[in-house]
Amino acid sequence: MIRPSGRQPDQLRPVTITRQYTCHAEGSVLVEFGNTKVICNASVEKGVPRFLRGEGKGWLTAEYGMLPRSTGSRMGREAARGKQGGRTVEIQRLIGRSLRAAVDLSKLGEYTVYVDCDVIQADGGTRTASITGACVAIADAFKKMQADGLVKDNPMKEMIASVSVGIYQGVPVLDLDYPEDSNAETDMNVIMTENGGFVEVQGTAEGETFSRQELNSMLELAEKGIAELSEMQKAALAG
Amino acid sequence: MIRPSGRQPDQLRPVTITRQYTCHAEGSVLVEFGNTKVICNASVEKGVPRFLRGEGKGWLTAEYGMLPRSTGSRMGREAARGKQGGRTVEIQRLIGRSLRAAVDLSKLGEYTVYVDCDVIQADGGTRTASITGACVAIADAFKKMQADGLVKDNPMKEMIASVSVGIYQGVPVLDLDYPEDSNAETDMNVIMTENGGFVEVQGTAEGETFSRQELNSMLELAEKGIAELSEMQKAALAG
Amino acid sequence: MIRPSGRQPDQLRPVTITRQYTCHAEGSVLVEFGNTKVICNASVEKGVPRFLRGEGKGWLTAEYGMLPRSTGSRMGREAARGKQGGRTVEIQRLIGRSLRAAVDLSKLGEYTVYVDCDVIQADGGTRTASITGACVAIADAFKKMQADGLVKDNPMKEMIASVSVGIYQGVPVLDLDYPEDSNAETDMNVIMTENGGFVEVQGTAEGETFSRQELNSMLELAEKGIAELSEMQKAALAG
Amino acid sequence: MIRPSGRQPDQLRPVTITRQYTCHAEGSVLVEFGNTKVICNASVEKGVPRFLRGEGKGWLTAEYGMLPRSTGSRMGREAARGKQGGRTVEIQRLIGRSLRAAVDLSKLGEYTVYVDCDVIQADGGTRTASITGACVAIADAFKKMQADGLVKDNPMKEMIASVSVGIYQGVPVLDLDYPEDSNAETDMNVIMTENGGFVEVQGTAEGETFSRQELNSMLELAEKGIAELSEMQKAALAG
Amino acid sequence: MIRPSGRQPDQLRPVTITRQYTCHAEGSVLVEFGNTKVICNASVEKGVPRFLRGEGKGWLTAEYGMLPRSTGSRMGREAARGKQGGRTVEIQRLIGRSLRAAVDLSKLGEYTVYVDCDVIQADGGTRTASITGACVAIADAFKKMQADGLVKDNPMKEMIASVSVGIYQGVPVLDLDYPEDSNAETDMNVIMTENGGFVEVQGTAEGETFSRQELNSMLELAEKGIAELSEMQKAALAG
Amino acid sequence: MIRPSGRQPDQLRPVTITRQYTCHAEGSVLVEFGNTKVICNASVEKGVPRFLRGEGKGWLTAEYGMLPRSTGSRMGREAARGKQGGRTVEIQRLIGRSLRAAVDLSKLGEYTVYVDCDVIQADGGTRTASITGACVAIADAFKKMQADGLVKDNPMKEMIASVSVGIYQGVPVLDLDYPEDSNAETDMNVIMTENGGFVEVQGTAEGETFSRQELNSMLELAEKGIAELSEMQKAALAG
Repeated sequence: MIRPSGRQPDQLRPVTITRQYTCHAEGSVLVEFGNTKVICNASVEKGVPRFLRGEGKGWLTAEYGMLPRSTGSRMGREAARGKQGGRTVEIQRLIGRSLRAAVDLSKLGEYTVYVDCDVIQADGGTRTASITGACVAIADAFKKMQADGLVKDNPMKEMIASVSVGIYQGVPVLDLDYPEDSNAETDMNVIMTENGGFVEVQGTAEGETFSRQELNSMLELAEKGIAELSEMQKAALAG
Repeated sequence: MIRPSGRQPDQLRPVTITRQYTCHAEGSVLVEFGNTKVICNASVEKGVPRFLRGEGKGWLTAEYGMLPRSTGSRMGREAARGKQGGRTVEIQRLIGRSLRAAVDLSKLGEYTVYVDCDVIQADGGTRTASITGACVAIADAFKKMQADGLVKDNPMKEMIASVSVGIYQGVPVLDLDYPEDSNAETDMNVIMTENGGFVEVQGTAEGETFSRQELNSMLELAEKGIAELSEMQKAALAG
Repeated sequence: MIRPSGRQPDQLRPVTITRQYTCHAEGSVLVEFGNTKVICNASVEKGVPRFLRGEGKGWLTAEYGMLPRSTGSRMGREAARGKQGGRTVEIQRLIGRSLRAAVDLSKLGEYTVYVDCDVIQADGGTRTASITGACVAIADAFKKMQADGLVKDNPMKEMIASVSVGIYQGVPVLDLDYPEDSNAETDMNVIMTENGGFVEVQGTAEGETFSRQELNSMLELAEKGIAELSEMQKAALAG
Repeated sequence: MIRPSGRQPDQLRPVTITRQYTCHAEGSVLVEFGNTKVICNASVEKGVPRFLRGEGKGWLTAEYGMLPRSTGSRMGREAARGKQGGRTVEIQRLIGRSLRAAVDLSKLGEYTVYVDCDVIQADGGTRTASITGACVAIADAFKKMQADGLVKDNPMKEMIASVSVGIYQGVPVLDLDYPEDSNAETDMNVIMTENGGFVEVQGTAEGETFSRQELNSMLELAEKGIAELSEMQKAALAG
Repeated sequence: MIRPSGRQPDQLRPVTITRQYTCHAEGSVLVEFGNTKVICNASVEKGVPRFLRGEGKGWLTAEYGMLPRSTGSRMGREAARGKQGGRTVEIQRLIGRSLRAAVDLSKLGEYTVYVDCDVIQADGGTRTASITGACVAIADAFKKMQADGLVKDNPMKEMIASVSVGIYQGVPVLDLDYPEDSNAETDMNVIMTENGGFVEVQGTAEGETFSRQELNSMLELAEKGIAELSEMQKAALAG
Repeated sequence: MIRPSGRQPDQLRPVTITRQYTCHAEGSVLVEFGNTKVICNASVEKGVPRFLRGEGKGWLTAEYGMLPRSTGSRMGREAARGKQGGRTVEIQRLIGRSLRAAVDLSKLGEYTVYVDCDVIQADGGTRTASITGACVAIADAFKKMQADGLVKDNPMKEMIASVSVGIYQGVPVLDLDYPEDSNAETDMNVIMTENGGFVEVQGTAEGETFSRQELNSMLELAEKGIAELSEMQKAALAG
């Protein structure tokens, strides 16, 4: 089996994490997993949703979108159609839920962090790139909040990162690009902390079912990939 | 640790599967996982969505809803609010995707099966009960299609069933009810075929992350529970 | 003329009223008029709509829905289409308006009663069954409010019930089922109190117009049917 | 009892019916019932809704709207709020259903008549004025269709007209204006043909229930009023 | 070049401005530019939008609509389609923005003026007629506010009026009607104050581009036409 | 008067036009007017809207959006709110209308060009940057269409470009950035062809009205600025 990109089965695509990508957001990251490019902006606003008011805790929520022509053929603009599609809803709920697992909301005070992940070019793995980039963006936003005296302690508990794994032509592979993703037998998105705890595991059989052993192989690849991504996040934040 | 219901950690709630529950649908099942009660109707219609036309294959799609007072406090009616919530969208996509894995769409001909899962009473695990009951409903619909000469071979590849597992007060438990679900550290929904293949695994850390070992314990509980549910499905279909 | 069901012209279908049908709602009734089956849940919430705030009065409002496959062929789900259809709106306004006529809102305090009528199986007369069942559900909810000390006096002024009448093949008939309803020359829904006062009368010529005399005949049938339904409501509440 | 307007209990408001009110519609009428003013436009378009295609029959449908400041205080514009309110939906369904009873759709050919009733000033009775005026507008549209050779025979079976009746301060009154309507114990809208057949009867108890005898008194007033309105329609069409 | 209407290139259509056209609004004008007829209602309500609260200033906003059959062929009703079209949005933003330029909002107190421009018959130039008529309606509303003691000084700074100009068959013309508008090479809407200041200029090349010289010719026609319209507004307000 | 940026009154911001910015679209441009950055993608699809079918002509339409945090404070995502705001609608209509003026649709064949202008960072002038960048993107798309044999002749008639001008602190200035735009007395957007023809002129008085002489000064600045932008477009396309 040769991957369309020529990569080894356990090899990530080239990853870049560019901070301060746009000038207005408290944290702004362009994350690239190969040809997949996502702008991750973290915005801090005073106040929390109604269900949290008066509890002294903060909130974090995420929204996800794709530029209409981020993909091979143009998709209708969700704003023009008047609703977000099911896939969008599913992804933005995943991003928000995962990032909240990285944050100690009780240290955030009554602030809400809005994370916007907007895909400008898609080649598979947009949700895992989004989570990996967005975690750096919120790290920057938290630093700014500390510098501005809005919070005392850094609300980040542990950094998280995410990668996809799958079974492609019978072989477990790491970080699927679009040609692999659209032909994989099984596709799994894994989100872990920098210390190796699992935050979310979502595996789906696309055609054939998968076995316990295949699941294990995929989890091992994911652990390896996320460890590498965590190092890149650290390097980016140190840069 | 004592479960709120007094069950053993590896014990399912009482499960009942009532076929022919309503009179119009080609397959109609009331499934009960303890106090969780879901009507699963399978409707067969001629024709397929545009993207499949002319391919000689069928389609299956699912919709999910909760009666406004299926829950402890009343939720706004989605039809009145003018949109389905994110959780609803996520669940109905999961139900549809899983059931399609159970079906050989090429044997279905140009028919669409609409699966409607409507929760009339909720006590945790509505999505796993929905999938387990809906698979019986589509089995009935397929039998009717064969009897009516609409399809030649049964389009069902393998029956599927689903159960939730989680870590509750540090202990892996099977088939969480609402009091457990709302306090679990980790919650995982597993969907498998009657022959033990994995169709979907979705595990989420609610508070603390989970370890590889905890993941393994949960998967083992799920395998046990789904084997039992598969037997109940068979018994119901034989009844 | 022989009715499709073999009933006498002035004969109701078998009616059952099952209380405590689901476990969460303050009042929960499954009402069956023959094959028409409707879940009627009454939910009590603190607070009133803005236009009533500070007046010390309560409010009651109703919503109506049909499961997509409650009917012979599947109807699109209103939540998925993003709006309630005209028929739905018309029916839920009728249910709410009628039930408010049964209630002394000034005795309710600043509470809102939400009535949800969800049709799980339809065979004609869903709106009249809904009103008849929902009145029992709110009676239960009011009892619970009294028991919980939320209201002092029972806010129910008089029980109401409802039935349809029509001209079928030239003959006035009581409680039309679907085969009659879809072929009736005239269809009338009547809502009355247990003491014989009229709450609402809605008669519509479907094909030919109707005469004053036919109107009178239909009203007499309705008076008879509603008297019987009132007795069944009393029996159910006494049960 | 003295009516706010000083009218006799069985006296209509001054009614005017102005044809050719706007220049584009096939039939265009301004109808005035006292201070209630409604523009009724009938538009003829080739084609019928999907459910009627190929049957050689026509269709008629109605839409209703109120200018935001047709009323004492401004109502939000339905187009801006993104949906028609329940009252609007209920009224336009009534208008369409009633007018279809006046028309032999099989003589209309595969044309659709759109009736638009837009209230420019409201003082009670907008739905009855709309129906009365719209019937004249469709009569004009049918004449034009005959003149243009689109239909051979006039599709109008019988003209219809409509009026409201009610119990105001204990007295049955004809054609309620807004001060009466907002204080009536019972309000009933009656639609009849020029030959005295009933098309629709909708009576609602607003506070107290009404008796069979009060119902009869109201129906008699309605018969008298509609006979007068029918004469005015004839005079307008002859003018 | 002969204009379809036979007018001179610099000649307005017959213009009428009827005040107190409907009875409820604080200012109500029917404005006619030839066959274009628009009802302009100004409604005064206590309170301002959130972004202005507590600043002691008022607000003015406008909405625009067309009756479905105000045009040669029927347009779908925006309320029924569930959204306002792009053209509607563009026009109502223009009307509101222009009228705000006529008003000293700081003299208005915390009141909002809603301007509703509803086209009952269209023959080109509906937006310019709307602005010209609406300015008279708000003048009446301001007089009423002064009379009622709601404001001390008249909030009107300067009256504004509006007219369209264009290049039709190579010739600059004033106040285009529909036959001209739909064939013009260039179409420009100009809004000016009674004292000759420009409020808004919107010129669009429909087919060929226009030159600086053509732009100048059109502006001169507009200045002439608006001067005449300003006189008619004054006469109407003096009447 | 010193401009916040220190620029001369007739000086553009630094402008860059980056082609092939994303990899999927037929034409893809990142345009920067200072800190304003817009991705302009041109997508070519077979087929035309219904109103053009069978005429052998093509169509071009545009959509506009801003990333939620492209601005100083986060704006709600239009896709999540379920509708495009009035400003968005106004701008995308302007972009589409202007670009159609640049194109000979009869040379395009039955293809539709979708132009997507997505603002990733905003600092004033997003609509003028969008038009200027999008014209380069469609030029690239047309070249690709010619290379692929989809069209024979280049459908571009003349390139167009756009710039804003205004009166800032009494002085006419070119290409307003956000600090100027939000304080300008008058703001005007001008769109011209590379040969100096006017395509659209939209001038709005924000506070005080503007005079004919001020209008002339602004037009002269615009002519100068657009001539420079046209040169940059040519250079980019030659690059």
